[in-house]
Amino acid sequence: MTDREKPIGVFDSGVGGLTVAREIMRNIPKERIVYFGDTARVPYGGKSKETILRYSRQIVRFLRSQEVKAIVIACNTASAFALEELSAENDIPVIGVVKSGAKVACATTKNNRVGVIGTRGTISSGLYTELIQEINPQIEVIGKACPLFCPLVEENWRNDDPITKEVTERYLGELREKDIDTLILGCTHYPLIRSIIGQVMGEQVTLVNPAYETACQLRALLQDLHLSNNQPLQKDEQPHRFYVSDAAESFSEFANSILPFEIRDAKKIPIEEY
Amino acid sequence: MTDREKPIGVFDSGVGGLTVAREIMRNIPKERIVYFGDTARVPYGGKSKETILRYSRQIVRFLRSQEVKAIVIACNTASAFALEELSAENDIPVIGVVKSGAKVACATTKNNRVGVIGTRGTISSGLYTELIQEINPQIEVIGKACPLFCPLVEENWRNDDPITKEVTERYLGELREKDIDTLILGCTHYPLIRSIIGQVMGEQVTLVNPAYETACQLRALLQDLHLSNNQPLQKDEQPHRFYVSDAAESFSEFANSILPFEIRDAKKIPIEEY
Repeated sequence: MTDREKPIGVFDSGVGGLTVAREIMRNIPKERIVYFGDTARVPYGGKSKETILRYSRQIVRFLRSQEVKAIVIACNTASAFALEELSAENDIPVIGVVKSGAKVACATTKNNRVGVIGTRGTISSGLYTELIQEINPQIEVIGKACPLFCPLVEENWRNDDPITKEVTERYLGELREKDIDTLILGCTHYPLIRSIIGQVMGEQVTLVNPAYETACQLRALLQDLHLSNNQPLQKDEQPHRFYVSDAAESFSEFANSILPFEIRDAKKIPIEEY
Repeated sequence: MTDREKPIGVFDSGVGGLTVAREIMRNIPKERIVYFGDTARVPYGGKSKETILRYSRQIVRFLRSQEVKAIVIACNTASAFALEELSAENDIPVIGVVKSGAKVACATTKNNRVGVIGTRGTISSGLYTELIQEINPQIEVIGKACPLFCPLVEENWRNDDPITKEVTERYLGELREKDIDTLILGCTHYPLIRSIIGQVMGEQVTLVNPAYETACQLRALLQDLHLSNNQPLQKDEQPHRFYVSDAAESFSEFANSILPFEIRDAKKIPIEEY
């Protein structure tokens, strides 16, 4: 296998990062993916930097054993806490959702008022605020934790659901009064209720989907490094592989609800041994 | 310190077990409590028996280092997977929520139709079903997973909340048609929305709160073993101590929303070293 044909490693604390894998499949369809979801140790939000770094290093060791050519950190928490270290420690490119999302939000806002929605862990850590203000200290970042969005998405109560609509209105009501013109979907699950979030926020607010932005950044990076796969994937090939640390069944169920093909066998591996 | 004055060890995968600690405080107010919440490794539901047993043994070693006179497993999953082993391995009494809840449900039902609500992990494992049918194989157990209840409770959208009401109606609608006369609140968070669950199910259904039943079982057990504390707690004493494995702040926040006194300092300890 040439370097160009090697897969992309994508990891997340659980199922949410599949929205990032999905954007990679859509936007760079010739690339193979090895996905790892740390379903035994989910959620990462709320855990310390030290713990997240230890977990992320184990996962990177596993992904490298699968001969990946680049690594995408699809988890917001791991992306914020471990991107710098993992980049420095590895001789293959490592990118993360938070930085991709923050960059695009900075380029998008015209009134320098950016909203971020995410899990309680993501919002209280201020990780998007920090990255955005490193790029442009003039930008004011308004965060709002929406802890119910993930379980609503996992319950498959998505865009047309009246309960999800009501929860969205309650969460975003106060954000609407803050005069933001850009809103970052700061959790990997949120693109799956993107249209309801867009309806509630109104047309004047641009939604930034870090999953999509990360796929675009990855495509550009692979081109720059001459690592893009040029060969179309074979029809009879199963180009993507899925691994988890626990309970493979419920992972496959969620995956099948959002991916355009059926995952039959997410494989469980003992991640603590890596 | 005499044996009678020693504290009760209570543990859970996270914050939920505080409802069990609260019932102990209410029903056996002279007892001291050492609480451990495994917030770094929450949730336990979905993890394998082997993993849960390893975690539970570490926690018991920690609690015993605090010289507890008895141990209460407040976590449904740990209670189902580890009670037998922990009881056999320790020379102090060990009791768990699942067994206490199952026993009382069996004694309560008249038509031999018992409902159980809990997390996806608790329901799919069938742990209540197994214990109930060991006691009385005639009883039919109807389980229903309610994954949104925990985040709703943690969001503090409790009994009077219209969204919580709507979610409860959707989850319990199908249970209402199953002709059950007894419903087990099979997750430590659910007693905090007990009244809304009761309203939706109607008066003909008796709710069983395993947290309360466990406190009653503990009181009887301490009396039998002559281990009840007879001395009233001192006014200036801080009788209860709280430990966690990660992120002590968010633990204290939830604790303060349900306990009748303020916890200032949940202490973080390295549980993996025990």
